[in-house]
Amino acid sequence: MSQLRITIVGLGLIGGSIAKALRAKGEDVSIAALDREYVLESARSLLDESAPVGSPKAEALVASADLVVLASPTRAILESIAPTLDLIREGAVVTDTASIKLGVAERAAAHPRGSRFVAGHPMAGREIGGFEASRAELFDGASWFLVEEGADADAKERVRAFVSTLGAKPRTTNAGEHDRAMAVVSHAPHLVASALLELGAQAGALDYAGPGFRDTTRIAGGPDNVWADIFAENREYIAAALDALVLRLDAIKTALKAGESEGVRAALDLLEGARRARREG
Amino acid sequence: MSQLRITIVGLGLIGGSIAKALRAKGEDVSIAALDREYVLESARSLLDESAPVGSPKAEALVASADLVVLASPTRAILESIAPTLDLIREGAVVTDTASIKLGVAERAAAHPRGSRFVAGHPMAGREIGGFEASRAELFDGASWFLVEEGADADAKERVRAFVSTLGAKPRTTNAGEHDRAMAVVSHAPHLVASALLELGAQAGALDYAGPGFRDTTRIAGGPDNVWADIFAENREYIAAALDALVLRLDAIKTALKAGESEGVRAALDLLEGARRARREG
Repeated sequence: MSQLRITIVGLGLIGGSIAKALRAKGEDVSIAALDREYVLESARSLLDESAPVGSPKAEALVASADLVVLASPTRAILESIAPTLDLIREGAVVTDTASIKLGVAERAAAHPRGSRFVAGHPMAGREIGGFEASRAELFDGASWFLVEEGADADAKERVRAFVSTLGAKPRTTNAGEHDRAMAVVSHAPHLVASALLELGAQAGALDYAGPGFRDTTRIAGGPDNVWADIFAENREYIAAALDALVLRLDAIKTALKAGESEGVRAALDLLEGARRARREG
Repeated sequence: MSQLRITIVGLGLIGGSIAKALRAKGEDVSIAALDREYVLESARSLLDESAPVGSPKAEALVASADLVVLASPTRAILESIAPTLDLIREGAVVTDTASIKLGVAERAAAHPRGSRFVAGHPMAGREIGGFEASRAELFDGASWFLVEEGADADAKERVRAFVSTLGAKPRTTNAGEHDRAMAVVSHAPHLVASALLELGAQAGALDYAGPGFRDTTRIAGGPDNVWADIFAENREYIAAALDALVLRLDAIKTALKAGESEGVRAALDLLEGARRARREG
């Protein structure tokens, strides 16, 4: 049987880590990558083939792949789903790594070859992005969510095997549940951490910050090009998560203003809710 | 000159770490501690003298000390300021380690010997409390805020020297500014982290949580006996900090609901505010 041909579109933190992990684990695969020339240059030793995105050679590398991994920024992934499915050959499979899944799954479902697409989201990241930040161990032990609705059995099996090869744990989800949950545990907390840090500066209070505050706000900020796509694509679920959070904080605030015993009781109830969540979580 | 006599009231995380740090740094001091019998038992090797809180011997150990460190929970500290100042002998100094300072400073100022009291707050803590959690290195390099208003030069000098001995960096503050700032960088974030964790559980989303969420919510929960006093004593500043935070989150939520471009712009502005805060902080 001939060597598996994998084409990675976008060689940033995730795409670069995929290439490095495949090499580090000694997989007998042929790796092609599409990105801008200067990125490909620094990854040369990892790659069997490469081409600038949008070039005729890039199309050929997608057309000849057994597995195409879309690992560009979210917006670029959304736009490349249909063109990629147009190009692939019989039996090939496409997956992606975008951190929102509803828009991805909808676009795949709308394509005649949609059953060969399995949407994915590796739960691995770092504060810094780009190929320089990529690491072979990035996925070791990490969850990798897979949206399998609409995919055929062979496509599911191939993408699961690929994800396991990288050291990650494949976990099934559905697109809507994924996006709603990510709004709660990632997107809204990112905004909250940013608001806390900005408020700390505004109040001239950062001199008083200890290790707890640094942990709470570690994820604050982050690259606009990554977050703009997430905020755009998942804005309804993020707004709902902020709504639920504001409701809780407003209730505590009102109780604290109303009086000492009401305030302390409401605040301690919230702490107990958090302890219970941690025990059961 | 005779050995300095230090009496520590409350041998929990902070009091225990003070005793261990004094021993580890080889200070030539006599250490007495007041706490419940079973706590004193496990600390026996560190101590020259000890007595159960409230006993006649405890009073004698306060009366004979050069420096008394009040390191009990906040409420107990507030209640012991006047009785401690009543007991101390000429030339002795009293300090405390409560994480709120307005109530402490007010009580000291109201006492005829208030000029011998310097309120303090070490910016060191762990998720777990109690003597078992105490460590000699807890204060190394940590800020230790001191409220010096109302204290005389000798008292200030002695407490500064004591704090430096422990490995901490003494930093001057005033009680109101301290409590307002702590509401912003500690007390409100503690409630926010708790609300995020509780919401994550409520939404069934904790399965989707990655390392970022774990950092953001690490401080959530915490012991009721510590937090009840903080919420009670600092409730006005905490309510104001929650108010300011809710205002920010509400604005983002409204913008996200209004439309994609408004929502993305508002959210990215917040991220930029956080990045600016980090650069300047």
